[in-house]
Amino acid sequence: RIMRPDDANIAGNVHGGTILKMIEEAGAIISTRHCNSQTGEPCVAALARVERTDFLSPMCIGEVANVSAEITYTSRHSVEVQVNVMSENILTGAKKLTNKATLWYVPLSLKNVNKVLEVPPIQYTRKEQEDEGKKRYEEQKLDRLETKQRNGDVIFPIINPEPHTVGYSQSSLIHLVGPSDCTLLGFVHGGVTMKLMDEVAGIVAARHCKTNIVTASVDAINFHEKIKKGCVITISGRMTFTSNKSMEIEVFVDADPFVDEPRERYRAVSAFFTYVSLSKEGKPLPVPQLLTETEDEKRRFEEGKGRYLQTKAKRQAQMQQAAQ
Amino acid sequence: RIMRPDDANIAGNVHGGTILKMIEEAGAIISTRHCNSQTGEPCVAALARVERTDFLSPMCIGEVANVSAEITYTSRHSVEVQVNVMSENILTGAKKLTNKATLWYVPLSLKNVNKVLEVPPIQYTRKEQEDEGKKRYEEQKLDRLETKQRNGDVIFPIINPEPHTVGYSQSSLIHLVGPSDCTLLGFVHGGVTMKLMDEVAGIVAARHCKTNIVTASVDAINFHEKIKKGCVITISGRMTFTSNKSMEIEVFVDADPFVDEPRERYRAVSAFFTYVSLSKEGKPLPVPQLLTETEDEKRRFEEGKGRYLQTKAKRQAQMQQAAQ
Amino acid sequence: RIMRPDDANIAGNVHGGTILKMIEEAGAIISTRHCNSQTGEPCVAALARVERTDFLSPMCIGEVANVSAEITYTSRHSVEVQVNVMSENILTGAKKLTNKATLWYVPLSLKNVNKVLEVPPIQYTRKEQEDEGKKRYEEQKLDRLETKQRNGDVIFPIINPEPHTVGYSQSSLIHLVGPSDCTLLGFVHGGVTMKLMDEVAGIVAARHCKTNIVTASVDAINFHEKIKKGCVITISGRMTFTSNKSMEIEVFVDADPFVDEPRERYRAVSAFFTYVSLSKEGKPLPVPQLLTETEDEKRRFEEGKGRYLQTKAKRQAQMQQAAQ
Repeated sequence: RIMRPDDANIAGNVHGGTILKMIEEAGAIISTRHCNSQTGEPCVAALARVERTDFLSPMCIGEVANVSAEITYTSRHSVEVQVNVMSENILTGAKKLTNKATLWYVPLSLKNVNKVLEVPPIQYTRKEQEDEGKKRYEEQKLDRLETKQRNGDVIFPIINPEPHTVGYSQSSLIHLVGPSDCTLLGFVHGGVTMKLMDEVAGIVAARHCKTNIVTASVDAINFHEKIKKGCVITISGRMTFTSNKSMEIEVFVDADPFVDEPRERYRAVSAFFTYVSLSKEGKPLPVPQLLTETEDEKRRFEEGKGRYLQTKAKRQAQMQQAAQ
Repeated sequence: RIMRPDDANIAGNVHGGTILKMIEEAGAIISTRHCNSQTGEPCVAALARVERTDFLSPMCIGEVANVSAEITYTSRHSVEVQVNVMSENILTGAKKLTNKATLWYVPLSLKNVNKVLEVPPIQYTRKEQEDEGKKRYEEQKLDRLETKQRNGDVIFPIINPEPHTVGYSQSSLIHLVGPSDCTLLGFVHGGVTMKLMDEVAGIVAARHCKTNIVTASVDAINFHEKIKKGCVITISGRMTFTSNKSMEIEVFVDADPFVDEPRERYRAVSAFFTYVSLSKEGKPLPVPQLLTETEDEKRRFEEGKGRYLQTKAKRQAQMQQAAQ
Repeated sequence: RIMRPDDANIAGNVHGGTILKMIEEAGAIISTRHCNSQTGEPCVAALARVERTDFLSPMCIGEVANVSAEITYTSRHSVEVQVNVMSENILTGAKKLTNKATLWYVPLSLKNVNKVLEVPPIQYTRKEQEDEGKKRYEEQKLDRLETKQRNGDVIFPIINPEPHTVGYSQSSLIHLVGPSDCTLLGFVHGGVTMKLMDEVAGIVAARHCKTNIVTASVDAINFHEKIKKGCVITISGRMTFTSNKSMEIEVFVDADPFVDEPRERYRAVSAFFTYVSLSKEGKPLPVPQLLTETEDEKRRFEEGKGRYLQTKAKRQAQMQQAAQ
């Protein structure tokens, strides 16, 4: 579809969150269709996880986004979908790859939302495809278990923070979940959640460096808990790490189901977003360094540095592999 | 209501689809109100057909759209509504007629969506009004039957197409039907469908001529099949004909009800949109000619030429009549 | 959240209606949460009244709106919420108070929408807080009764009105209530209604003075009757009074529940909006005087003048108090 003014920031760059939302919609459609392709209980595919994804080039207002999706692996209860986003300038005809993402879905019964159904297996053209898919499946399963444990942190407001400290740029946003945010099952679309997360992360980044900022990448996001219609969700973000030209922001989504079936507020999702700062000509700018104060802040900074160096090493390895 | 940035293209011209959506909303309100005016089963009026309509002058961001609707004929099971759209520049006070449209609605029972109810008859001030309305009713009934039969065509993707061929500009868009797209009966508003059709047609036109394009007219659209909440709809468009200064684009809407009540994908709507290309000063530009390759493309080009010449002849006859 | 192009007028000033909608959403969340904090029947808080509120400084596209809400008084069946809106320019870090509003909510049972539930009492830190709250509660109760009685007026269209008369600028807008306009109970959010009211009042003001206009204040709004999903609402506005630099516009909301449970059209809400006209540099401009023609128009002008002088006197008293 064509990118509209509301999809973009003041500089005309389309929000990463808008792109994540389109990706998730495409993934939900193809996996729901696949899981209903055999006669049996009707179901809706719910997003369980998005693998780390990079935003390769910014998209602008007036460009057309082409989203294509393909099922690349099925386990007994989950579907792996590969989604590609191309941006096309329809006036010049130029096309660019904007984004590649891998998503995992789980089919939930339309009649009983707590029942996970079986996924019809796909046919692989080569045996290696199945083996590689199985490897990816095992890896993500492990990672899901790990993140489930570190999900307990809370962000408190800070009075009169100094510029460039963590407290200075931390931000939060509250949203009441309405019908247009939800699937047929009455739960929030994963894509809606990711769009709000990107919005908060973008506010944190802009408060820190006070320039035009864009989403560079999003780390793997795990959706541990569904969020029901009528909940209030609080999305909060804080900066964890800065390199010379990038900022890492941790975002939490907490759901508060205060109506209907009262239950404690709970952590539904958490993720790391990486942003870069751009000059008016679209060149990356140096980023002011994050000032860490508490022990926790220093520890998170080191952990962020670890992720940053790991990603950098992985990318260099890929480039060498590609060059061979 | 006031036209917003998201209602318009980059050049500030309001999308034809936004106007069609407003027209349909006005038509649905007046005919639903009329059909519920007698005590009896409550119902919702569903759009069955929109007659050919011309966009007389472009509307811009910041202008106010005044939509007025009037019931002009009732048959036993259908209502004809005439809708006028005036654009008003509230700063200068200038008003222009933007659009005149004729729509047909059918009342469906709120309790049983497959039951068509009876329409309370309206009073005519002159006997001729009733006779002319009856004539229009018979004509549209005939046309509905005809289009139902040619509804089988499918658009396939083409690899590496040459510029200005049919394959080069053909486009499609996928949309998951959500609650805010639907009426009280849980079916997609006709206006929502038309807005998406105009979006795809606009992308086809822009890809072909790579300039600022606007909707000039829409041929009669028949809504043969309802589209239910939770469906995925695929809207696809291809260019069929070019004159010196206009492009005709055929648009198909296919619905895929993959959840809940599995059923084959089916053609719900099809229509022809005519676009013109505008210079920066808003003057019509010459259009690159469409290169037809296959026999089918040549046949469709000739058919499009036939429609173009027929419309031109009709318009000249009307102008001569008006001049007498 | 960040202000988007669709939230603002052509000059980039965020619509007062967008701000009112955010305020109401925050109020609805905090009071619904409070009313569900004790075990008992689940409920949704419905907006009963908004006290008079001033727009202290305009907000612009790209700024972040910070909305904070606090419960300041509870009676047996109602909750008073104080909401503050700060606008923040995230590039410069500058913050300004945009708006302060006081709202009253009533908890309605999720199982039986006509049943008003009891509100858990809040703890006051000082006895005076409770007494002042009780005084505000009694005052608004009285005012609600009064406005319920003058709720009968209707706006008729006028043919060929002269510039600057009441008939010249009066306007109305029709809206079909869809699912995304509604709460969990299936009734229109008060904030949605206020946004539409501000849109109509803005069209009346722009038609009268043909310049860039912004909302300066909104008088107390009482929500006497709920509006159900599927209703058509007609929002109509007419100018009642002009001072040198401000315009007062009266806005009515009428609901027409034509489907499902047929009932007469009824007046749901009415309110007074005050607008000012701004130059390109954002300075207030003189306003063309309203030409009153009928006896009713002259009477309403005098009443408007009364409200204007009363507000002016109150503001001067507050400023003197603040200066002491």
